[in-house]
Amino acid sequence: MVIEKIQKTNDIHKLSLEEKKELALEIRQYIIDVVSKNGGHLASNLGVVELTIALESVFDLKKDKIVWDVGHQCYVHKILNGRYEELKTIRKLNGISGFPKTMESSTDVFNTGHSSTSISACLGLACSRDIQRDDYQVIAVIGDGALTGGMALEALNHVGCLQKKMMIILNDNEMSISKNISGMNKLLTRLRTKKNYRRTNHRGKEIISSIPAVGKVITEVVSRGKAAVKQVFVPGMYFEEIGIKYLGPVDGHNIEDMEHLFRQAKDFDEPVLIHVLSKKGMGYLPALENPSKFHGVGPFEKETGEIKKSGNSYSKVFGKKLVSLAKTNKNIVAITAAMRDGVGMGEFSLKFPEKFFDVGIAEEHALTFAAGLAKNGMIPFVSIYSSFYQRGYDQIIHDICMQELPVILCIDRAGIVGNDGETHQGLYDMSFMKCIPNMTIAAPKNYKELEMLMEEAITYKKPIAIRYPRGGESSLPMKTSPMKYGKCEILKEGEDILFISIGNMVSRSMEISNELEQMGYSCGVINTRFLKPLDSKAIMKEILNKKMVVVIEDGTMIGGLSSSIKELLFENQYQGKSLFFAYPDQFIKHGDVSLIEKKYKMDSSSIKNRIIKEMK
Amino acid sequence: MVIEKIQKTNDIHKLSLEEKKELALEIRQYIIDVVSKNGGHLASNLGVVELTIALESVFDLKKDKIVWDVGHQCYVHKILNGRYEELKTIRKLNGISGFPKTMESSTDVFNTGHSSTSISACLGLACSRDIQRDDYQVIAVIGDGALTGGMALEALNHVGCLQKKMMIILNDNEMSISKNISGMNKLLTRLRTKKNYRRTNHRGKEIISSIPAVGKVITEVVSRGKAAVKQVFVPGMYFEEIGIKYLGPVDGHNIEDMEHLFRQAKDFDEPVLIHVLSKKGMGYLPALENPSKFHGVGPFEKETGEIKKSGNSYSKVFGKKLVSLAKTNKNIVAITAAMRDGVGMGEFSLKFPEKFFDVGIAEEHALTFAAGLAKNGMIPFVSIYSSFYQRGYDQIIHDICMQELPVILCIDRAGIVGNDGETHQGLYDMSFMKCIPNMTIAAPKNYKELEMLMEEAITYKKPIAIRYPRGGESSLPMKTSPMKYGKCEILKEGEDILFISIGNMVSRSMEISNELEQMGYSCGVINTRFLKPLDSKAIMKEILNKKMVVVIEDGTMIGGLSSSIKELLFENQYQGKSLFFAYPDQFIKHGDVSLIEKKYKMDSSSIKNRIIKEMK
Repeated sequence: MVIEKIQKTNDIHKLSLEEKKELALEIRQYIIDVVSKNGGHLASNLGVVELTIALESVFDLKKDKIVWDVGHQCYVHKILNGRYEELKTIRKLNGISGFPKTMESSTDVFNTGHSSTSISACLGLACSRDIQRDDYQVIAVIGDGALTGGMALEALNHVGCLQKKMMIILNDNEMSISKNISGMNKLLTRLRTKKNYRRTNHRGKEIISSIPAVGKVITEVVSRGKAAVKQVFVPGMYFEEIGIKYLGPVDGHNIEDMEHLFRQAKDFDEPVLIHVLSKKGMGYLPALENPSKFHGVGPFEKETGEIKKSGNSYSKVFGKKLVSLAKTNKNIVAITAAMRDGVGMGEFSLKFPEKFFDVGIAEEHALTFAAGLAKNGMIPFVSIYSSFYQRGYDQIIHDICMQELPVILCIDRAGIVGNDGETHQGLYDMSFMKCIPNMTIAAPKNYKELEMLMEEAITYKKPIAIRYPRGGESSLPMKTSPMKYGKCEILKEGEDILFISIGNMVSRSMEISNELEQMGYSCGVINTRFLKPLDSKAIMKEILNKKMVVVIEDGTMIGGLSSSIKELLFENQYQGKSLFFAYPDQFIKHGDVSLIEKKYKMDSSSIKNRIIKEMK
Repeated sequence: MVIEKIQKTNDIHKLSLEEKKELALEIRQYIIDVVSKNGGHLASNLGVVELTIALESVFDLKKDKIVWDVGHQCYVHKILNGRYEELKTIRKLNGISGFPKTMESSTDVFNTGHSSTSISACLGLACSRDIQRDDYQVIAVIGDGALTGGMALEALNHVGCLQKKMMIILNDNEMSISKNISGMNKLLTRLRTKKNYRRTNHRGKEIISSIPAVGKVITEVVSRGKAAVKQVFVPGMYFEEIGIKYLGPVDGHNIEDMEHLFRQAKDFDEPVLIHVLSKKGMGYLPALENPSKFHGVGPFEKETGEIKKSGNSYSKVFGKKLVSLAKTNKNIVAITAAMRDGVGMGEFSLKFPEKFFDVGIAEEHALTFAAGLAKNGMIPFVSIYSSFYQRGYDQIIHDICMQELPVILCIDRAGIVGNDGETHQGLYDMSFMKCIPNMTIAAPKNYKELEMLMEEAITYKKPIAIRYPRGGESSLPMKTSPMKYGKCEILKEGEDILFISIGNMVSRSMEISNELEQMGYSCGVINTRFLKPLDSKAIMKEILNKKMVVVIEDGTMIGGLSSSIKELLFENQYQGKSLFFAYPDQFIKHGDVSLIEKKYKMDSSSIKNRIIKEMK
């Protein structure tokens, strides 16, 4: 195995081209093995095997700095830099992360996770290098999808202005997570189709398709000699216009061609963009044919590419209800930012193409665009993951809430998301939304309530955020009473302990209260439904004369439900006991949700034990 | 006066070209009059007099929709749409706003204030129009500065993709608020210098410069016939590449030429960008020569252009201290986003050009760029206004705090800013920063403390936000004890009432406590200095046995200092009285700071009276 020769950073420098090709084969097989067990980002990593090998062959990672945009395509890099064995622990609690982490290796130069940050970070690295009179190369590797993100475009402008020595590798898959439709994409399309680009990767597709064994790993797509590599300076278009030299395109699965181009580019003292054409999922037919499905994926059957059927989920229920609402309400439109399938908008996009907008990785635009639609009488349902709403915070304040426009912000992946880790945890939305005037914040305890909230939200005619977690509802049966704006739901009355919780944590409260009742405690349970406005009066009425109040929320301890209830208890001079369960004021690393919950003592049994101890 | 013919929307349609030219003269004079008294945005409004007249002559504002990007250039529009007299109340409490407000007029289609939102909003309007099978034009007017903002670029991409009928007027002043240096600017420069553009506005500059009387109003810069107007389709470059038809450039001070071009563009069924070249400050030499000074300006002497000398300010003290720190610490770099002079970085930019970065209107990039610099050992001082930090929220969480990078976030214009109104109030930063792990938040009570905090922040080696208001420190003498991380300062000990406040509100606490002492109450005053971490132990020690706790902060009631103290009091079972003074959960409109404070009962006398009443 060639991989045995790769023990540490720069070992790749010692390999021959033939060995590198063999290595690519081994790495592909290994990544498919690992991801089929652990889940993870498959298609994007298979797409950059040769790119990573070529890059790290040409550059010296003991001094040169590579920043991987988004970062989910860093598995090959981790393998080449001392983490071959550890890759087996990827995304698991106490294992290595699925994203670059400076804590893991000095070759992980800058942490990433969210899209479009690499050019800004690299420009910062390049400027400091020059101030420090140092000499090394700085390289941003960014996909075409991430290049639609506004901050990447801001950074390109600044790169063009400052003229620092740096490289931008545009890894062009002709798609971002979902289908990438944008003006920038049109521009790239023209570049892609330049005659002097040898279309080997298209041939690659054909070759692979003709191989019968599904799931087989293929590397050497087309064998060719070194010749023919023509380095071309395209007369600019966008990149050259803004002051960035453009090189390419080059076949992203041809190590030799890429190494050649990278060596040429290395010597420029100004910013260079190298356009690399690659295929997501390269070498694994199921991923190649459906890269979106194999973008972020759970464990799957390696031989067939069959993914373990996932059950129902909040996202699916949301998507289905959205379609049903749109059938009778002609004003409903749907907006997302490169996560159509993730948020469950697939069916809507097919049924109402004119009313469906996937803006690409562009959360800022998505939200003000929604405001524009709402201003004209439409009812926009925006669905974006919790941690990505952080990207459109000003737009929520300035364009939506300040004008009190009826945009329905569906916050998917709220709470702990698990294996993607700290960059993707949805722990802050309740806090950063709560301080915005005119905002309503609600969370459903189960599918039924999500549907009810969606129905209701349409009638409120003002901004509302509806948050729900990754995955599905609890199997615990719970009654669901009619919804009323700003009103809580009293699920259970009791004498000793009152549980107050919201969303996903209501079922946990019910579960714990059931167990405590069997032990002789009389428990009440409130589902606040709304965090803002909080149904303070009804909640205080229930609190009176309780021995203990217990608050459970899947968010940070600062500024969310616990904070609201503490203030309420203070204002009402509550004298009884109280316990608050929320995540501490720290970033929460990756791992299975249930293990993270145990670690932070947010699981049923930890909470129950804590209550029992406190009640004694 | 021609202006008398303009009573309501579309009255402009009835004027002859000659009358419009006369009207432009009258409007300029009037705007200079009003702004010299009220303060306001002068240069940008003088720059769009002819543009606004031409636009509103061609379009029917009873159905067509114009969105003014940023919006501070809307004075001419307000004059043309029924608010001539009301302009005299502009930016004053209960007067009209200095920005477009849908509440004021149906011709103010979409509220703006922050930059780069107009294209997104207009695309939303255009999409809804088409879904509703309606027929009218949608027009975004955006400056070249705003076009460096990422969300505008995201929106352009989407516009290029959707191919909706809409117009983008690129009002190119060759500068944003400060000097606009970016790749996008390079691109525009090429477009500007196209041979077939008649460089009348450059001639205009010369003509004006040769007129002796400073402050004189000039309209008809160059007189020409209708001929010669050549509508040109530039072979694309950026805009055409991404799918947006490009027309121009056209002289932004020639009504006739612009009307001609707008009429042509009106009939396109696809997105069109019209490149208009204008001069900020046109017609008023002091503003023309120094548009940055006359961007947002206080009252000034109309005849001479002399601006009432403003006193010292937090921004100036910050700028001076930054220079002094950088003299001995070679790692200090400074970053801002198109507000160099506003934040006081002018001197630094001259003394340390290699270490100064004005990234243009690009807050997202600014913050991750700072993270990149910090990652490599530099110490970045970022200074941005409070409400614009909302634009880089994810970058603060994801790039700075998650990596615990020592970026020093200076939050200028924190608290009530006054006349710019709701879009610019800095009321939310304490709340949205507090919930971010690894963040430290501090605020100085006076200049001395700002300097101390800046010195200290360098030594903390982790992210810190330092907030301070627009304007200057209180004249009240206050002692200032040595700074210690996370520790509060006890300014005064007393038996009855304990004041707890931070930053700008500490002097108010002192003032009120002095008055109350004269009435016989014994008062203590704590300057928390740090909101996070809060010096809970020391604060609780002071609280014990007090009759009343009074908290004063210049932020929202939700999630800031009041919220933290309530939680602290709850956790410590405080039984005494308490009063909390902060801004209510609503957007706070424009007006002089002192009048806003009175309105919300945040002024000394209101607070004092409330305390006295409560103590009885």
